[in-house]
Parts: sequence; C-alpha cells; structure tokens
Amino acid sequence: MNQKMQWLRNQMLSLNLQGIIISNPTNIKYLTGIKAEGTLLVTRKENIFITDGRYVEDVHSTLTLFDEIIVYDVKDISAYDYENFFMFCENVGFEEHYVTYADYKDFIRKYKINNFVETEYMIEKQRMIKDEEELKNIREACEITDQCFSYILSYIKPGMTEKQIANEIEEYYKERTDGISFDTIVASGENTSKPHAIPTNRQIQEQDIITIDMGCKVNGYCSDMTRTFFVGSVPEYVKPVYDLVLKNQMQTTDDYKDGANTKTITKMVEGNFELHNYSLIHALGHGVGLEIHEPPYINNRLDIPLKENMVVTNEPGIYIPGKFGVRIEDTIQITKYGSINLTNSEKNYIVI
Amino acid sequence: MNQKMQWLRNQMLSLNLQGIIISNPTNIKYLTGIKAEGTLLVTRKENIFITDGRYVEDVHSTLTLFDEIIVYDVKDISAYDYENFFMFCENVGFEEHYVTYADYKDFIRKYKINNFVETEYMIEKQRMIKDEEELKNIREACEITDQCFSYILSYIKPGMTEKQIANEIEEYYKERTDGISFDTIVASGENTSKPHAIPTNRQIQEQDIITIDMGCKVNGYCSDMTRTFFVGSVPEYVKPVYDLVLKNQMQTTDDYKDGANTKTITKMVEGNFELHNYSLIHALGHGVGLEIHEPPYINNRLDIPLKENMVVTNEPGIYIPGKFGVRIEDTIQITKYGSINLTNSEKNYIVI
Repeated sequence: MNQKMQWLRNQMLSLNLQGIIISNPTNIKYLTGIKAEGTLLVTRKENIFITDGRYVEDVHSTLTLFDEIIVYDVKDISAYDYENFFMFCENVGFEEHYVTYADYKDFIRKYKINNFVETEYMIEKQRMIKDEEELKNIREACEITDQCFSYILSYIKPGMTEKQIANEIEEYYKERTDGISFDTIVASGENTSKPHAIPTNRQIQEQDIITIDMGCKVNGYCSDMTRTFFVGSVPEYVKPVYDLVLKNQMQTTDDYKDGANTKTITKMVEGNFELHNYSLIHALGHGVGLEIHEPPYINNRLDIPLKENMVVTNEPGIYIPGKFGVRIEDTIQITKYGSINLTNSEKNYIVI
Repeated sequence: MNQKMQWLRNQMLSLNLQGIIISNPTNIKYLTGIKAEGTLLVTRKENIFITDGRYVEDVHSTLTLFDEIIVYDVKDISAYDYENFFMFCENVGFEEHYVTYADYKDFIRKYKINNFVETEYMIEKQRMIKDEEELKNIREACEITDQCFSYILSYIKPGMTEKQIANEIEEYYKERTDGISFDTIVASGENTSKPHAIPTNRQIQEQDIITIDMGCKVNGYCSDMTRTFFVGSVPEYVKPVYDLVLKNQMQTTDDYKDGANTKTITKMVEGNFELHNYSLIHALGHGVGLEIHEPPYINNRLDIPLKENMVVTNEPGIYIPGKFGVRIEDTIQITKYGSINLTNSEKNYIVI
C-alpha cells in the first residue's frame, strides 16, 4: 500500500471509522494515482475501486500488486455485495462536501450503513501540505508557465485577437505538459476590468493594456500566474493603480510564511486599497495542487494559518468597471521562515 | 419574465412550492441565460440571482428589465437577508442531485427553511424536450461537426500524432463555435480498444484503424458524433465487427421514435452483440443539450420512453482489449413517427 493510503488508514483508526467511501475523483487520484470515474471504498480488510466498463482496462494498467486495490466493474456488483462491503462497520465516513443529498440517502440504503459520518475535508486538509514529489510537479508547471509567458510576450503583436493569443498559450502548454490547468484568460483594453474575462475577438491595439491569467498541469499538478502588461508604453493613469497592486502583492509575498494568518493578510491588502479609494473584490489567493483552486482559500472570512509546504497564490487586483484592471499573481511555496516564489516572471512594468 | 421562468413558476404552483433554490449552473443557464457561478432563488415575489464580484458586471450586461431578475453580490447579503428570502414559505424546493449533503444542511440553517423538498430532476426532465431555439443550436453544432469531420479526413496523414489531430479538430471548432463540447477522442491502432481513450503521441500508420469522438457547442448547446475509419484499406478481421456495429446502429436509429422504450432497444443491441460473442460494455446513448451527457440516459437499466423533440445519441461500440475497437455515433432528434439524424457524415467504410 502506498504512503497516502497508509496515512488514510491511520486517520480512520484515530477517528474510529471502520470504513470510508471516497467519491471525489481528485481525492481518489491523490490517494491512489487512479484517474477514472468511480468510487473508492476502504473497508476493514480491503481497498476497492468501483468503476465501469470504460475505465476498467485503464485502471488495471495503472495499478500494481503493491497498491493492494481490487478493481470492480460496477455491473458485476450485486445488491448483496453492496450490503457486505461495510458489514460489521460501526462507523463509515463519507465526503459531505462532495456527496449530493440524493447520493447520501442512496449510499445509506445501498450499503446498509449504520452510522454515516461526515469527515470534514479530512483528505483536502492533508492535500494542502505537499510532499517532495508534489512540489516537484508544481515547480515544473510554474517553470513552464514562466517560459510560456516569456514566449508569448514576443509573440503578441497589435492586430491579434485575445482568442488567438489564448490559443497560442494553450498550444504551447499542450506540447509540453498535460495541458491547461484552467481556461486561459486573455483580456485587453476595457476587458481587463472583468476579473473573470473570457477571451474575445477584440484585437490588440497600440497602447493597449493586457491581462493574462494562465497555468498548466504537470502530472496532474497545476500552476497559476497572472501578469498585466502594456503595448508601447504604460499610460500615466494606470501607473498609480499598477504600483498599488504591485506594492501589495510584494508585501503579501513577504508576509506569507509558516504560521501567518491569511485573514489578517487579506484585511491588510483591503485596508491599503481602501485608503486609496479602491477595493479588493475577490479573494487574495487560494491553494494550488491537483486542483487549480483548492484549500487553503485566502480571503477576509477564513482564518487559516499557513503551514510549511503549502502552495498558494498571491493575486491582488483592482478593477475599474468599463475602464481597465490590473492583477498580478504568483504561485508561492510556504516555508518555515518565509516563502519561495515558484513564479519568476517580471513584475515591474512590462512593455512590449 | 421569459417562458422558461414562467414554466418554473407554474411547476412550483402545481407542486405547492412557495420557493425554490436552483444551484445547478446548467439549470440556471437554461432558465435565465446567465452563465456565471451563483445561486438562483425563486421566492414568492421575486427572482434573485446571488453571485460574486467576479461576475456581477457580466450578469448585469446579460439581463434586461424584462427578465425580472434581481442580482446580488454575495458579500452584500446579511444573515438577516437570508432568513427573509423564504419567509412565510411552507415548502421550498432544492436540487437533491446537485446540492451536497453539507450544503443541504447549510441551506436549512442559513435560509431558516421549514420544509426543504426534493424536486426530483424537475428542471432536467423539462430540459429533455427541446424547443425550436434549442433545436436550431444543436442542428448547427451537428452541421459544423460534419464539416469538421470532412475536413479532418482530408487533413490526416500517416506520421501525424493522435494529439496533433485532436488539436486540429479543437482549433477548427474554436474558430467557428463556442468550442468543444467534450475532450476530443482520437484513438488509433490498438488504442481504439479503449472506449474512453485520451489522445497520445502515437503516430498514425499505414493500414491503421482510427476512432474519433468529437463535438462542439453553439450558444451552449452540444453536438456529439463518433466515426471509426481506416488508412489505406479495411482489414478483413475488422469487417465483421464493423458491420455488426453499423447494423445495430442503423437498426437503433430506426427504432428511435416517440414512445419507444430505451431499455428494450438497448437489450436488443446487447442480445445481437452476444449472439456474435461480443458485448456492449457501455450505454447505448444519452441526451444531448446544454450538457454533453444529460437525461435521458439510454441503457439496459432505465426504462424511459423517448418523446418528441428529445435529442439523443445512438452509439453502439465493440472493443477487443489490446487489439481494436469500433464505435459509430450520431446525434438524433426524436419525432412523433420516427427520428431525424442530425449527424450526416458517412457511416459505411471510410478509407483515407
């Protein structure tokens, strides 16, 4: 059994769970390496992955004997089998933040579960702390993202559309990685005022402002980075906003370290923005790993202390509706006494 | 208020629901046209969409006064507001197949709901029957898919990789539509034996067998089609399998009509495959609309009669592990007395 499954079994022991049903495919990938639709059951004696005909062959080729996971095709499981999986289990855990209310009721009936216990993001919490293998994958995804950004700065010319630039980024990633970690944002001119802009057919103009938010996946692990940059020159009216965002982004990078309070850090950025009559309309950051957005979420509501080997973003932004916006984002590894910036692209004014 | 929201209010009346919470973003898009993260509340007097800072500007620009939808930024809603939305509502509906168990508990607490009622895929069931506007979008997506397939047949040359071909398809779609409706499958040689193959760097060879499963979106509505075809010539050992799949695919197209029983149709295909010592290891088809896979699901377990203006796929396949596979899939509109094939690409042996 691998280390992560061993960890799970230890957790179950300490929580007095005799069985658990894992439904979240990202948690299944984390624990087992399996990338397929299905359900992972950890019972008293066995680890079982239930999938369907589309995936059986693939899953078998991923696993080794060492994994100690039995693979079932869902169509071969009888009502009697379901009732037997958790026989003599007093408590069975489930993922209440992933399982729908309908499935919750269905699981209790189908598996004849005595006491179905909420597990409170148990696996997600463990996923926040990356091991060396996971860090290696994220570092590589960030490096390729820096290289892609550097390439794309030389590629962009006035007349190109936002869509065309987004496609070029996605092609770059496809050739070198598992592909994009989220739909690439390329926003230009007034479109930069939308934090969540979708690339349009708007053409890049001389003296434009451009925001690109991009990331890729390496062995399933994500990178995430944003830069706002300029064609020809930096407009004077943008400079104070850019400087304010950058100052806060760099201050936050300094503040990120083991033990730091993310709510306080967010409130400091909000306070500084408000002092200049702007506001922070989205979260300051989020964890990055197998998912592009995962715990810890860094905002003004949640009070999560950062821990060594968490990987999080740091992405303050200011948006002036209908005019323009500026966002600067890095992916950052937390260490005992500070942080390591995994994103190394330029943050001072970039003019192409 | 638009027709679909009017329909929803009528449904609520007939089910004695004084309020409803819609959480599934596809259902929200269906009812309102809004494409954003958020929650739609239909209360006694109002329609309310709760979203966050990232989407407020966009949602406002989508809606008109006629829509009668009030947009809130989640950060402006107080605990008191939540308790007021469904005040004096005896029964409030929710989507038990979408809402997680954790959210179910949270909603009851936050909205102070008296009686939280499961709505049993009410909106999904309505979405199965397409109106003229929806059919128009799907028809267009299918037409572009036929054109894309025709283009790709002329594009493929031995030496190209599966990934390269998949990229070319996706580029074709991006230039003409909202993009792909699912990750394009391009499988060649022995990879065709995996129904759910992911494109690899395997190069197309002379005398190869190739399966492509592809689709795009027009105004959010999907197309879905699969063809298995050949480089140079059709190997003799593949012909009996191809002929058997095609015969069943065409028989199914004949059987699809208003009132037809999908379980029986699936069992007929299964029976015919088994007669020849093969088996059908996946569903025979599925509904197509705002989602690439949506009800009605056509398999050997569900007993759903087809209805006029449903749009479904018809996709029998046979897979011989480690050797090869054949799947043929069309997107089909059900009519009163038969069906209309929205996919018009060649189904007899295609040799490039």
